Amino acid sequence: MFETDWKPDKTYPMPLHLQIIGYIKEKITLNEWPIGTKLPSQRALAELFAVNRSTIVAAMDELAAEGVIQGNTGGGTKVINNTWNLMNQSYNWNSYISSGNHQPNHMIVQQINAAESDPDMIRMGSCEPAAELIPQDKIQKILKKLSVSSQPLGYEEPRGSLFLREEICKYLQTIGIATNPSSVLITSGALQGLQLISLGLLHANSIVYLEKPSYLYSLRTFQSFGMQLSGIPFEATGINIKKLSEKHKSKRGSILFTIPTFHNPTGTVMPLEKRKELIHFCEKEGLPIIEDDVYREIWFENAPPPPLKSLDQNGLVLYVGGISKNLSPGLRIGWIVGSEQVIARLSDIKMQSDYGTSSLSQNVAAELFASGLYQEHNDILRKKVKVRRDTTLIALNKHFNAIATWNIPTGGYFIWLKLNEPISMHQLFVKALNHKVLIHPGDLYEFHSNQHIRISYSNATLAEISQGIKILSELVLEQEIGN
Amino acid sequence: MFETDWKPDKTYPMPLHLQIIGYIKEKITLNEWPIGTKLPSQRALAELFAVNRSTIVAAMDELAAEGVIQGNTGGGTKVINNTWNLMNQSYNWNSYISSGNHQPNHMIVQQINAAESDPDMIRMGSCEPAAELIPQDKIQKILKKLSVSSQPLGYEEPRGSLFLREEICKYLQTIGIATNPSSVLITSGALQGLQLISLGLLHANSIVYLEKPSYLYSLRTFQSFGMQLSGIPFEATGINIKKLSEKHKSKRGSILFTIPTFHNPTGTVMPLEKRKELIHFCEKEGLPIIEDDVYREIWFENAPPPPLKSLDQNGLVLYVGGISKNLSPGLRIGWIVGSEQVIARLSDIKMQSDYGTSSLSQNVAAELFASGLYQEHNDILRKKVKVRRDTTLIALNKHFNAIATWNIPTGGYFIWLKLNEPISMHQLFVKALNHKVLIHPGDLYEFHSNQHIRISYSNATLAEISQGIKILSELVLEQEIGN
Repeated sequence: MFETDWKPDKTYPMPLHLQIIGYIKEKITLNEWPIGTKLPSQRALAELFAVNRSTIVAAMDELAAEGVIQGNTGGGTKVINNTWNLMNQSYNWNSYISSGNHQPNHMIVQQINAAESDPDMIRMGSCEPAAELIPQDKIQKILKKLSVSSQPLGYEEPRGSLFLREEICKYLQTIGIATNPSSVLITSGALQGLQLISLGLLHANSIVYLEKPSYLYSLRTFQSFGMQLSGIPFEATGINIKKLSEKHKSKRGSILFTIPTFHNPTGTVMPLEKRKELIHFCEKEGLPIIEDDVYREIWFENAPPPPLKSLDQNGLVLYVGGISKNLSPGLRIGWIVGSEQVIARLSDIKMQSDYGTSSLSQNVAAELFASGLYQEHNDILRKKVKVRRDTTLIALNKHFNAIATWNIPTGGYFIWLKLNEPISMHQLFVKALNHKVLIHPGDLYEFHSNQHIRISYSNATLAEISQGIKILSELVLEQEIGN
Repeated sequence: MFETDWKPDKTYPMPLHLQIIGYIKEKITLNEWPIGTKLPSQRALAELFAVNRSTIVAAMDELAAEGVIQGNTGGGTKVINNTWNLMNQSYNWNSYISSGNHQPNHMIVQQINAAESDPDMIRMGSCEPAAELIPQDKIQKILKKLSVSSQPLGYEEPRGSLFLREEICKYLQTIGIATNPSSVLITSGALQGLQLISLGLLHANSIVYLEKPSYLYSLRTFQSFGMQLSGIPFEATGINIKKLSEKHKSKRGSILFTIPTFHNPTGTVMPLEKRKELIHFCEKEGLPIIEDDVYREIWFENAPPPPLKSLDQNGLVLYVGGISKNLSPGLRIGWIVGSEQVIARLSDIKMQSDYGTSSLSQNVAAELFASGLYQEHNDILRKKVKVRRDTTLIALNKHFNAIATWNIPTGGYFIWLKLNEPISMHQLFVKALNHKVLIHPGDLYEFHSNQHIRISYSNATLAEISQGIKILSELVLEQEIGN
């Protein structure tokens, strides 16, 4: 929750704890930490300000003595007063924050989000592509073009820039999806597509079937609006259709969420025959599908089978794609493809959410497609990511051979590591964080799973990957022995 | 709902109605118009395809005879079949579309959104700045800089780019708001700020007090999540605090939404004394405030009084701002300023909604602030918009003197025209649309109001403004005589 670049100045002739008191009081004076604000733990504050814990204790004692903060036995310390400067009492937002409609992210996801920006962290959790995987030269080429030829940036049509939608249609044609611009909605990343679907097409008590494990378990997008997640067992070829059939009682408003290609977190690819079978089943049952296909372009040897959407004769599939994983997360460009009436509904919700995605980002993306730079980049990307995968596999073989098993991904960014023995994932996560290794514990993707870790090789450098996996193996061993 | 650039080719040796049949069948074959899709009216189709209505009648009769579509006496025509090509029945999304959580936009807003992209339209509804008001040269200057010096575009921190937040803090300082980057969240336009507040801080049955009339009445952002709008009478200086006091029964979770500066739609500016009084009242009552301040920089003679936020000693005000109105809508850059714990909560919801705003847009905005081009542009903008306002006032004096009264705005984009006689606003809106004049009927901003029109002078050219107001006055007169 707290974020700061400030640190006490060790060269300054004032004791560190007094500098910290001054800083905290300033925060309270500015009403940025109003009364009721819960302070981080002493340990966290020590880390935040890069001082010894004893310095924090001194500062806290002083502030408590002044009646500015108060600790309780539960371990929480709160701001309780700001009258030292004769101000009125600050507004207490706690009831608003705790009763707002949308659920907060899992605590651990919030911790992860916060840790992401630590430059010293070995990031093996994030699926964000490393800087070396983002084609900055190509984007700059486009920016240079736009710096002489672009149009004034006004609002776009509800569905997004027609130029971009046309280019996306051409691209989709190459992966087997025949569609037209009216059936495409531009979103701010694929994640927003899921939020729009949850707001526009589902209702409280809608059931969302999903693979178990699934990336979707790490989100609160659907649950926040009252939908229920119903996990379906997973097998080597993807979702178990028989089990899906047993669970599905043709409830009104239910939908299947699936990642058939380079599944997150397991890396699994659903074979073509099974894709046909799944489409057939869903047609028969009238069960619509959300197909999340954001990893498609990141393959190593052979292109994956065509998307479910390409097999969809009936407009049953909502296809969610984007360029955040394989090109640039920062552009925030994704898309949903579906039948026109669904796209009209979703684009109306999109207009009500943010009045459209950045026109500048849309222009850049459209130019990337139109110029051929998009495909050119993907060819380069695949080679680079393959090296990352191979490095990861070598390190795993070296350090995890005796304590875990794993898949060999043919594309995407993940290895789903299965430890031979269950351990506390939370403990491991925190320990790894303290060793500056950021991982995604498996229980983010499958509740109560205490044997899995999702290892991402998209972000850390090759040296960091080897180093991170070594550290991780040591921590796992240490914890297993401790058990 | 339907959007197409396709028109039958009059030079092609196939009757127009057969070309149209082919087009419609193709749409159905591609499952873009699945079974259950409601077709536009014959009149609308004739307009869409730029043909005579008799051509449409011929095509529809043929399609009905083939059993592809079916009309009913209520006037709706639907796709009912696609078996001419032996396809399975298309999936019927209607139950999903009608039961989704989020309310659709008002029908009239959807019509407005669709009409916005008609290049022949005189747009006097939209508050989108005209191309001549967007500093394309300055943006291109920044793009050129970024084309040689920019960083790879990854995800940003949850609150948004630190560089941009720092620049926004410096800017806010100039309008009297002392804050720091941790208390600022970057949003995709100010509208998203409102959605985040509705998702993160309010709950079903929260009461949102607002001025009557208010821009907020034209949105469904709050109502979609179960909040209730409670309109407070308006007076020459803004919201009537006494009436607010009478209505407010210190309900938990209530909040005040206000636009104290160049109020939308009335253009009113709340005087400084009243701002102090309002803050004092809200402090006393513990009623937090959403201050929407997106028109602040568009003033003609004198800068407006400082924002409520600058008077807020207690972190009671959530300040919503952005650059869509005065610089570029297409960058989609807005911000919320509030106490840190609130910003932490909202940034978490933002991460769950779209994983942050376009980094490219954030970079461009930050450079605009840092280079001084932002302020430089505002100086130019004010002069240009003043000419627009003056032109509008001249046209109103010429054509509306006998039939309406209006305010003289000292900033912002709107004139709130009050007709002397009530008329059907819906009729006027449709008639104006047929004459290619797009207005916002007053009942968008105040339910059941049948005497007001919001005239925006931000988008049309000076010649169009004069022309549009002339046409509008004729339509009003015609309708008054018709009554």
